[in-house]
Amino acid sequence: MEKETKTNKTLIMFSNDLDKALAGFNIAIGAVSMGFNATIFFTFWGINILRKENFLPCKKGITDKIFALLMPRGPDKLILSKMHMMGMGTWMMKRVMKNKQVAMLPELIKLAQDSGVKFIACQMSMDMMGIKREELISGLDYSGVAKYLEEAGKADVNLFI
Amino acid sequence: MEKETKTNKTLIMFSNDLDKALAGFNIAIGAVSMGFNATIFFTFWGINILRKENFLPCKKGITDKIFALLMPRGPDKLILSKMHMMGMGTWMMKRVMKNKQVAMLPELIKLAQDSGVKFIACQMSMDMMGIKREELISGLDYSGVAKYLEEAGKADVNLFI
Amino acid sequence: MEKETKTNKTLIMFSNDLDKALAGFNIAIGAVSMGFNATIFFTFWGINILRKENFLPCKKGITDKIFALLMPRGPDKLILSKMHMMGMGTWMMKRVMKNKQVAMLPELIKLAQDSGVKFIACQMSMDMMGIKREELISGLDYSGVAKYLEEAGKADVNLFI
Repeated sequence: MEKETKTNKTLIMFSNDLDKALAGFNIAIGAVSMGFNATIFFTFWGINILRKENFLPCKKGITDKIFALLMPRGPDKLILSKMHMMGMGTWMMKRVMKNKQVAMLPELIKLAQDSGVKFIACQMSMDMMGIKREELISGLDYSGVAKYLEEAGKADVNLFI
Repeated sequence: MEKETKTNKTLIMFSNDLDKALAGFNIAIGAVSMGFNATIFFTFWGINILRKENFLPCKKGITDKIFALLMPRGPDKLILSKMHMMGMGTWMMKRVMKNKQVAMLPELIKLAQDSGVKFIACQMSMDMMGIKREELISGLDYSGVAKYLEEAGKADVNLFI
Repeated sequence: MEKETKTNKTLIMFSNDLDKALAGFNIAIGAVSMGFNATIFFTFWGINILRKENFLPCKKGITDKIFALLMPRGPDKLILSKMHMMGMGTWMMKRVMKNKQVAMLPELIKLAQDSGVKFIACQMSMDMMGIKREELISGLDYSGVAKYLEEAGKADVNLFI
């Protein structure tokens, strides 16, 4: 009989701050590289991390259009949660990361997908913010809080980021 | 002999951001609707979510009075953690939620209490911020970090929101 | 045969907000006082909590120097995540805590170390932000995400703060 042990790692990516996204993807990639299953559940602002960079004309209401416009479109548009300084902080951080050859967010997202991190986009958040599936990158599952709780119940590490 | 399995879900509601509160309550309500026990431990700013809307004259020091005045009184006063835009972001989000008939925070709080989510208010945070029990909604337990850790130790999902 | 039960508590201290740091240390100290092992993994902004107050001239590049200058140096320099009000909020909170004899952050850090909370500083974050080991307080382990995941896998409570 197989011994039941939970070793999965599950992250809720609620934020779209660049710094928090970097932390989340580094943890998830670390987990899969150690042989664990890792799932990231993107909800609320976190949905923005999954948006394609290019503007995609979609049929949606005016409020949804404004909303979509005001939120960052994809990983390159994210900013730090601190040291805003009119964009200087984010610019500096990216420069430092590049100089030190630390992996940037778009690379981390690709690496995470390639190495088997499971991405789940919260459908309810998408509906609320008026984001359509065709506006998001491919390779996603779409689901809700019930699915998250099911995954989280199989994991021994659960974080809200 | 009963097999011991942890299936409870425990959330620390530290923030009083509208968006984070929405996420927390949706997770807790999702959990109880799936048959799990769910506990929300309200600490620090999170205490403000539990405040009654109406001003209640209490005997307290001047600093406590100023503090209480500067913090949001109840779920209707919370604002988003992002897209402040002088209140526009929160107003837009509420309008979107209303249009799409997504449950608003006051309804979620009621639903959570009615469906058996356990609410614990952190007494130490209340003391620090000078918030009295009569200023909070009814149906709460009052406790501290030891109680939280006891509950968290019986849960398989623990989140800090 | 020893029954394997996870009772450790592991916190990721990502933030350097005063309020979140207070919450994190109170949880960790609560845990060790109840007989559990507690580990705090300081990453990203959280590294700043561990910085010595006094400026230490270090050999580093100009960007690293600017970065270090822009981030808070040690627990006394942290500010609240909310109620900035040009520093008023943090000043008020500290005054309230002092009046009510609530332990301040520097005391909590010392208490945590004295009572056996394990401190791990994320080496990758330090490299990225150009913070040297000699700039941080003593008594730290230095490690990365793999070590964190190893510790987290032995814990029944894992929080991202």
